[in-house]
Amino acid sequence: MDMSRRSALASGIGLAAVPVLAEIAGGGRAEARASSGSAKAPATHKFEMNIEDTSITLVDKQTFHTFAYAGQVPGPLFHVREGDQVEVTLNNLTALSHTIHWHGVLQRGTWQMDGVPGITQKAIDPGETFVYKYVAEPSGTLWYHCHVNVNEHVAMRGMWGPLIIEPKNPIKIEKEVTGDYILMFSEWASAWADKAGQGGLPGDVFDYFTINGRAYPETQPIRVKKGDVIRLRLFGAGEGMHSIHIHGHVFEIVFKDGRPLPAPIEADTVMLGAGERYDVILRCDNPGRWMVHDHIDSHTMNGHTPMGGIMTVIEYEEIPRDDTFYEWSKKEFVPNFYYEESLKQPLGIYTNAVFKGKAIG
Amino acid sequence: MDMSRRSALASGIGLAAVPVLAEIAGGGRAEARASSGSAKAPATHKFEMNIEDTSITLVDKQTFHTFAYAGQVPGPLFHVREGDQVEVTLNNLTALSHTIHWHGVLQRGTWQMDGVPGITQKAIDPGETFVYKYVAEPSGTLWYHCHVNVNEHVAMRGMWGPLIIEPKNPIKIEKEVTGDYILMFSEWASAWADKAGQGGLPGDVFDYFTINGRAYPETQPIRVKKGDVIRLRLFGAGEGMHSIHIHGHVFEIVFKDGRPLPAPIEADTVMLGAGERYDVILRCDNPGRWMVHDHIDSHTMNGHTPMGGIMTVIEYEEIPRDDTFYEWSKKEFVPNFYYEESLKQPLGIYTNAVFKGKAIG
Amino acid sequence: MDMSRRSALASGIGLAAVPVLAEIAGGGRAEARASSGSAKAPATHKFEMNIEDTSITLVDKQTFHTFAYAGQVPGPLFHVREGDQVEVTLNNLTALSHTIHWHGVLQRGTWQMDGVPGITQKAIDPGETFVYKYVAEPSGTLWYHCHVNVNEHVAMRGMWGPLIIEPKNPIKIEKEVTGDYILMFSEWASAWADKAGQGGLPGDVFDYFTINGRAYPETQPIRVKKGDVIRLRLFGAGEGMHSIHIHGHVFEIVFKDGRPLPAPIEADTVMLGAGERYDVILRCDNPGRWMVHDHIDSHTMNGHTPMGGIMTVIEYEEIPRDDTFYEWSKKEFVPNFYYEESLKQPLGIYTNAVFKGKAIG
Repeated sequence: MDMSRRSALASGIGLAAVPVLAEIAGGGRAEARASSGSAKAPATHKFEMNIEDTSITLVDKQTFHTFAYAGQVPGPLFHVREGDQVEVTLNNLTALSHTIHWHGVLQRGTWQMDGVPGITQKAIDPGETFVYKYVAEPSGTLWYHCHVNVNEHVAMRGMWGPLIIEPKNPIKIEKEVTGDYILMFSEWASAWADKAGQGGLPGDVFDYFTINGRAYPETQPIRVKKGDVIRLRLFGAGEGMHSIHIHGHVFEIVFKDGRPLPAPIEADTVMLGAGERYDVILRCDNPGRWMVHDHIDSHTMNGHTPMGGIMTVIEYEEIPRDDTFYEWSKKEFVPNFYYEESLKQPLGIYTNAVFKGKAIG
Repeated sequence: MDMSRRSALASGIGLAAVPVLAEIAGGGRAEARASSGSAKAPATHKFEMNIEDTSITLVDKQTFHTFAYAGQVPGPLFHVREGDQVEVTLNNLTALSHTIHWHGVLQRGTWQMDGVPGITQKAIDPGETFVYKYVAEPSGTLWYHCHVNVNEHVAMRGMWGPLIIEPKNPIKIEKEVTGDYILMFSEWASAWADKAGQGGLPGDVFDYFTINGRAYPETQPIRVKKGDVIRLRLFGAGEGMHSIHIHGHVFEIVFKDGRPLPAPIEADTVMLGAGERYDVILRCDNPGRWMVHDHIDSHTMNGHTPMGGIMTVIEYEEIPRDDTFYEWSKKEFVPNFYYEESLKQPLGIYTNAVFKGKAIG
Repeated sequence: MDMSRRSALASGIGLAAVPVLAEIAGGGRAEARASSGSAKAPATHKFEMNIEDTSITLVDKQTFHTFAYAGQVPGPLFHVREGDQVEVTLNNLTALSHTIHWHGVLQRGTWQMDGVPGITQKAIDPGETFVYKYVAEPSGTLWYHCHVNVNEHVAMRGMWGPLIIEPKNPIKIEKEVTGDYILMFSEWASAWADKAGQGGLPGDVFDYFTINGRAYPETQPIRVKKGDVIRLRLFGAGEGMHSIHIHGHVFEIVFKDGRPLPAPIEADTVMLGAGERYDVILRCDNPGRWMVHDHIDSHTMNGHTPMGGIMTVIEYEEIPRDDTFYEWSKKEFVPNFYYEESLKQPLGIYTNAVFKGKAIG
């Protein structure tokens, strides 16, 4: 690997002098330019990001070596409109090869942008750069991830992030939504935690389980108030199944893989397979403090410690949080953990300091 | 732990002198009182039960230590009507902390009754009592289970039972049902069988698989006759997936998590995730002897012995059972194994001697 | 076992002199006779096949002992019409007992043909013959497999094959289909590869993953052209879950277990449980080279080697295959790997040389 090239990329040298709308710390620069006229005319979203060797730490003890998009797990939020142009300059600063597959994107006429090594492109070698350009379609809850050695790179090295494509013509229930949340479920095998380039073998024991790369109690509450209508975008980002149960409500499963279901399905539990996404709409009509968790019971473990992993709490603002028994009574609230604040911003590409790993090497 | 308190509870001392409608052996007393007037006016169902250290034995050899609600696995049947009041006095006679989460109950205005330790209540410590009071809604196939250290307490210690809430306004197909059956699927890891307070770790090998806590050939047949319309209420009560296949029929999947699907789905196999429930309706139009089993093949093992686990047989009364090759030709029939008899009784809370464990200590 | 009987069966001696429409190499003879009059009058399909000890080799190194129907994995294609009569003479030439369960067939009035040992018949012992006779119904994507010691015989010994029953009254979208493909997903545990009669225990590590018994790169592409409408019949033939993702298209999930869904479901990923089948319809409107793969990442492993297992490629004829980076640029194309050619032939029972194992002993 050409280390001078690597340094140049890391320091941002060599970026084109484009009209930058959002300067993004730690890994990229983004630009968005509407083509003109109507606010809904196709825009072009340009972004440059690195794949970096980083580490993330779960529940204060277990560290994992990650190959992080823009240095973070999950990767940056891509929030664009159906029909927009996306252009991503991807620099591989790690010692292994990678790509990005834009999971769910049709890539009409741009199959070479699909990110599958050996099929649609040569993998991006260390020190190399690849530019992905495509039109964002169809609308909905999509995502992206590495497609090289997926057994290791995806779940175990954190190479995934959300791609939300707003529809030109939203369906009725979408217009009622007051809060939009991204929850990407994944799992980790501590046996391979620091062994970058290895692991992800059949029979591996996954022993850490995360929402957006964090395990309870280091996840964050979902804070709502009565009358809110929240959309929870659930992603099977690793290789495991996840059976997500929400207490105190019957919710509606409205979208699968970004596409509206023929009719919403009422449920209190929704099971996701690897790669699937379900969007559920939940009407906040029942003030309380409500668990959201994976009902695969061992997915609530942090290694050998119970009551962790894939758990969080919907907190209504009508309910004080000061019960002495409440584990999160003194929880420091970190907004935007579910990208809920970024999703209220203008369309664009958003990094998130919350998810930033520690640089390695 | 206060052992005198423990004894008092075990012997039932201290129960309020309420009008008891059903004296229940081995674990509780129940009362139900309709508020007056119409038979469909809300009733109040009161029940007192203990959590007890017990053991259950699978296929005559493998014993598991359970923390059993009312001393049985599954726990008692709660069969109430939408809008009824439920009041459960729960005494913890074991040496570990527990709760009950009423999975699927909305708990409108009663979130502190939701049974999640550290979130909605302090866990119920050994020797302590907690009273759950809530309105039964929504209607449908619900259940209850402990929410403390779910990785161990739920699947491996048998802390689960059925909660059936009859709808005020049943849908058409429900009115056709002639037999109603509860099938709760779960799994067990023999490595931890007698190590109460341990186990349920990521990577554990589950090697026993049960319907209502029993493995084939110790499950029971489902006896029907031509013309019957049976409702099978299927529960993912443990942490595993279960892919339930029924021979000789196309059935309809009508409810998920207690809620009617937008339209019934025809199938011969239905997959359940942890925590999910599916109600299927099967029209008995094909006299024969038909397997019902988990198609996850290793879930038909009893330890290392094949053709056990999650298997049962639908037996039509039109078909003699005397074939010499038939493994159940001399089977002793135990009605109410699927709570099918209790479900024909007036609404109330029913224990079931079939599921009773052996007291420990 | 009576070895002279075994030899006689293997050499085909003793077959009735029936009007044979298709002489089939390596394992059977088939006959089909329409009853007369209309082409759609019920036909009778007769077939004789052996269960044979064979071995198949995955990715040039890992050999598995199989008990193969007609000596092949998957077994022969049964392609008949709803209402047709099927008659299969099954000779067990192996040293263990077996049956065939016709998964999904109603067996109205013929429950003794359902193939469950100890329930509907005595297992077919070594050297014995059993004749299955039944009416093919309902229509759709069905399959067959052994029902003896399913934990070992099904996934690990390859005892499964497709049974496609054409409907008398196809639904609209079926009539648009230009290509029909069978993809049976399964998995293998190399620890037991050569230990016939053992294996399939709880906790086994499955480390090979196949489509129609082959792992990438030894699977075959699906070759289409713009305008094609393809039907992919997906089978959960082993015991694992499979979360099948197709790139570059939104497809429609139209059938579950052979039965039409109330409404098609749009998706880019479909999860199958053991025993389930989903038929998806994909409109070929996007020329390119598109991965089809299991999104359970470790299911793309061949043992410890990444990027194998359950992967294939949809190749449009509009796209040259000569990219130097393309792993299949010099792939030898083997048509009928998905039984797509057999499915265009007249109804009947088809063996497939592609799936033929090597005889053992």
